[in-house]
Amino acid sequence: MKIRTLVASLMVVGVAGISVAQANEPISPIKPPSQINLGMVELGKKLYFDPRLSKSGIMSCNSCHNLSMGGTDNIPTSVGDKWQQGPINAPTVLNSSLNVAQFWDGRAADLKAQAGGPIANPGEMAFTHTLALNVLESIPQYVREFKVVFGKDKIDIDQVTLAIAEFEKTLVTPNSRFDQWLLGKADALTADEKTGYKLFKESGCVACHNGEAVGGASFQKMGVVSAYKANDKVEGRSAVTGKDADRFNYKVPTLRNVEMTYPYFHDGAANTLTEAVDIMGRIQLGKKFTADENAKVVAFLKTLTGDQPQFLMPILPPSSDKTPRPTPFSK
Amino acid sequence: MKIRTLVASLMVVGVAGISVAQANEPISPIKPPSQINLGMVELGKKLYFDPRLSKSGIMSCNSCHNLSMGGTDNIPTSVGDKWQQGPINAPTVLNSSLNVAQFWDGRAADLKAQAGGPIANPGEMAFTHTLALNVLESIPQYVREFKVVFGKDKIDIDQVTLAIAEFEKTLVTPNSRFDQWLLGKADALTADEKTGYKLFKESGCVACHNGEAVGGASFQKMGVVSAYKANDKVEGRSAVTGKDADRFNYKVPTLRNVEMTYPYFHDGAANTLTEAVDIMGRIQLGKKFTADENAKVVAFLKTLTGDQPQFLMPILPPSSDKTPRPTPFSK
Repeated sequence: MKIRTLVASLMVVGVAGISVAQANEPISPIKPPSQINLGMVELGKKLYFDPRLSKSGIMSCNSCHNLSMGGTDNIPTSVGDKWQQGPINAPTVLNSSLNVAQFWDGRAADLKAQAGGPIANPGEMAFTHTLALNVLESIPQYVREFKVVFGKDKIDIDQVTLAIAEFEKTLVTPNSRFDQWLLGKADALTADEKTGYKLFKESGCVACHNGEAVGGASFQKMGVVSAYKANDKVEGRSAVTGKDADRFNYKVPTLRNVEMTYPYFHDGAANTLTEAVDIMGRIQLGKKFTADENAKVVAFLKTLTGDQPQFLMPILPPSSDKTPRPTPFSK
Repeated sequence: MKIRTLVASLMVVGVAGISVAQANEPISPIKPPSQINLGMVELGKKLYFDPRLSKSGIMSCNSCHNLSMGGTDNIPTSVGDKWQQGPINAPTVLNSSLNVAQFWDGRAADLKAQAGGPIANPGEMAFTHTLALNVLESIPQYVREFKVVFGKDKIDIDQVTLAIAEFEKTLVTPNSRFDQWLLGKADALTADEKTGYKLFKESGCVACHNGEAVGGASFQKMGVVSAYKANDKVEGRSAVTGKDADRFNYKVPTLRNVEMTYPYFHDGAANTLTEAVDIMGRIQLGKKFTADENAKVVAFLKTLTGDQPQFLMPILPPSSDKTPRPTPFSK
């Protein structure tokens, strides 16, 4: 059943390629993931949903990257352990395998490197890798499943993050109306949506938002033409490179499923696509979109919503008598 | 697919009835739900998972009644808005349609009456029914879906709680090994498990834990033979009836899936089944189980884990520009 669901979802990509594909477009259709280890995916899915990887026992990867809501939490900045306010907007996990690096500042090279971060971040899941491993090692069904997937006698953090990353690699969203159009279905877009795409290209948005993920491939300054007054105090890429030139540089976010991933920007300050398009036009391109132009660009952006990952909600293996209990209310 | 999954899961009940059923047992097999409105179930499932029914935008029914974890949160008392500590252990939602009433003190007559409580409880989801309806009315896909299901022009709280309750009615767990045995599969239980069941009956546990839900049908005093020193300050049923005689009376919890619904008791003070069986024996029955007896009762209890509800994780309709935004960090 699980495998069938995955395959059925991916086959749609092929079915959509009805007639002649649009050539020479700066955006390309999402490709199905290949070389996927399905045993690892099923294990990773459980871990992704398992709040026992947090100190409190109530926060999982899915808490802030909710797969019912476009892989985000739809609030400006996330809520961490003890209701701490996060410093930055949670980016979507959907299509994140296509990013050049992970986190807004790119401090993790890939999904595996990212997955360990929140678990041990005192402001997020507030646990430690050692404590998380103690929990997993105490749960017989996890011990067996890790053994089957990795063939080792002991669970380590590399196995945990590899499995989560493998699950995340499956979280692509093919078959958006825009991709159907790219693949040759001429009537997949309305006239307004096509005009919006034309505006998107001609105004220069596409300089950064291009490729398979319509973004995610580079770091760019937030506020090229005029400064952006952020709601937060983060400084972006310079925190990683130490270079002053990288201040306020952020990874260009993907625009795939952008209708679902509000609010927008690294500080989550823009509630609507209308607002986001207006601000981007002014501070990045020096362009003031008219209301009509803005509406058409927004109409185009909404065609980037693809098939959301569909899967059976995982049933987590129960703790044993030896499993350390979560401590939501202790220091 | 959704309907097929439900039907397949329920058909197993029939398949398990291989030979002659065990007659005259005080526990009966779980029956599949009937007269289910599938449109309402699908809508109710979305609402059950939708954190926009909370002030913060991060808490849904599934936060404390997690369907990946036996319909509970597996912590002693739940975490509410702004990380408030809840007063009482979150009971499982699984098989809750079989309960005589809802909440530990039975203050809600049925699932529909229960569903509205946490949304408006300042210590839980901290919202109001009016604000929740404002959110739903602003989301076009919800407006359409409510219209299809209820045929009315306006969403009201009765529709919301009815739909959630209808989804919850499907959350039954048939086909436990114990039910297979009840239905005639003699080798579904080991010798130790059968001995454990005999002890469970002969020691008097079954006086309260009986019927389809193995509990859930009556209110009983916690501490019949000797007083229970609770970790909390709640007084149980008397808060509803106003009768002094009902102090420390609680709804008898279901023991279905009890392996998954730790920690135990209304204060969540017992971490393991071994501990819970020991305490129940002493304070309710005046009986000290030997280690061997305790282990066998626990072995029996673990045969009550049934097929967990399996369904595709719902994809929530996105907010519109008009949707009021959640306020996790405001007062």
